Amino acid sequence: MEQDHTPGEKKPGHPPAQSILHEVRTAENSAAHLLPKLQSMKESNPHLTLLDVGSGSGTISVTVAKLIPDGHVTGVDINANILPRARAVAETAGVKNIDFQQASVYKLPFADETFDVTFCHQVLIHIGTPWDALREMLRVTKRGGIVAAREGDYESECVWPELPELGKFHKLMAGLMSAGGGAPTAGRQLLSWALKAGVEPSQVTVSYSTSSYHTPSERKICSQGLCDQLRGGGLREKALKFGLGAEGDFEEMAKAWEEWAKRDDATLAMLHGEILVQK
Amino acid sequence: MEQDHTPGEKKPGHPPAQSILHEVRTAENSAAHLLPKLQSMKESNPHLTLLDVGSGSGTISVTVAKLIPDGHVTGVDINANILPRARAVAETAGVKNIDFQQASVYKLPFADETFDVTFCHQVLIHIGTPWDALREMLRVTKRGGIVAAREGDYESECVWPELPELGKFHKLMAGLMSAGGGAPTAGRQLLSWALKAGVEPSQVTVSYSTSSYHTPSERKICSQGLCDQLRGGGLREKALKFGLGAEGDFEEMAKAWEEWAKRDDATLAMLHGEILVQK
Repeated sequence: MEQDHTPGEKKPGHPPAQSILHEVRTAENSAAHLLPKLQSMKESNPHLTLLDVGSGSGTISVTVAKLIPDGHVTGVDINANILPRARAVAETAGVKNIDFQQASVYKLPFADETFDVTFCHQVLIHIGTPWDALREMLRVTKRGGIVAAREGDYESECVWPELPELGKFHKLMAGLMSAGGGAPTAGRQLLSWALKAGVEPSQVTVSYSTSSYHTPSERKICSQGLCDQLRGGGLREKALKFGLGAEGDFEEMAKAWEEWAKRDDATLAMLHGEILVQK
Repeated sequence: MEQDHTPGEKKPGHPPAQSILHEVRTAENSAAHLLPKLQSMKESNPHLTLLDVGSGSGTISVTVAKLIPDGHVTGVDINANILPRARAVAETAGVKNIDFQQASVYKLPFADETFDVTFCHQVLIHIGTPWDALREMLRVTKRGGIVAAREGDYESECVWPELPELGKFHKLMAGLMSAGGGAPTAGRQLLSWALKAGVEPSQVTVSYSTSSYHTPSERKICSQGLCDQLRGGGLREKALKFGLGAEGDFEEMAKAWEEWAKRDDATLAMLHGEILVQK
């Protein structure tokens, strides 16, 4: 879900500055738990249909679409302003078996049993009743199909070195997720949410993976993305709105991320929970 | 490192009760970051020598030895009482290209540049100056060889459901690691420790992986292992010694782990840091 898009920035050929961290996402680094299953489903049916819920800038949707060239991917996002960017990402990649439209995960504009695979990434962590979202995703999925989700567990975040301002940033981010109705511990709760959506334990396959930034170039991308959010993005606006920070705080945190990026010993890693639900 | 062996239990054919969680460890689930490199090294030299530092019950050492049948594995552990168990594990597996001996990671009884690969798993997390340990591991490694380490990051632990006694257990375990001179955030610090040992950033490859328990059988093993430690193992003894718990606390925590194991929605996951250092 594209949470941090600034409504003013609508140039479809250019990502919003703060989206740099979202646009490194691909099927390979963000949906690896789904890919073996997708491959085996494709072997028996090359014309797979896949719904990517909360597709944001579309980089995962587009790389999944490349993997099923005879199939079709539909991306939906609650934020209509991000759709032009997603379409531009698809066009730049030369991917044609894809379309994007505006929709809420709570009310998907599709008939029952429409898709072979329904997927979401970093969506359920932001919303109040993720089990309702999963139930809706199950509804639009064919019998014999798959619902797949991958959500970060923000409380597992590992940052080194332990600069005090980075600790404050962690609390700010967790506070923003909670204030928006989400759960910073989404990753560990995915199984419980699937069961709450009415799924039997035997239908769910759980796994965990990580994301991390530790090479100089990765640290630079990470720092730049976070600094952009702190200095002018939606994160700053939301933090001010919810009273979770004052003007001066954001610049201090941004400077700490810049210092972090320059340290040879700096790393950032997080655990992500994953589920595959067999309908 | 076999930290929790009870000195009284010395039957080599049987693991100490509390070692159940250590003995599920294999090369595949605990040294996956090393295996592609090991494979490529084996192709140019089938007679690889590997040192496993803190080999404990030997299950990783033995499964690595199987992967280099024309090579040789040496396992060392600070705890001489665990060596008969490690030898029994090797014998049961029919693995002969292996030997075990007592040694400290700070003073390995080997000449400079003896091994092609020097490996440790969940060792540095327990000790006071892990960079000295890495320097010693580098010393006994040949030029062109590899030092590999994998250490948990205990502060990344994700437990669901959030039973209060499990929160207390987490604090107890972190307190025990710190009281023993170790660092519960070892996983995220591995790169910094390697640099402190005198390694150049360009020599280090960092990665992260996870361990988890979420199927009914995994939950049962996990719960049983932790309950054994709480009800009679070295963990209980150490907690009492360091004043980190009272008699009644341990039984409450054990009951909580038993309750956790029965819950369909229960999961436990943790992030591990990994390094490969090219000497």
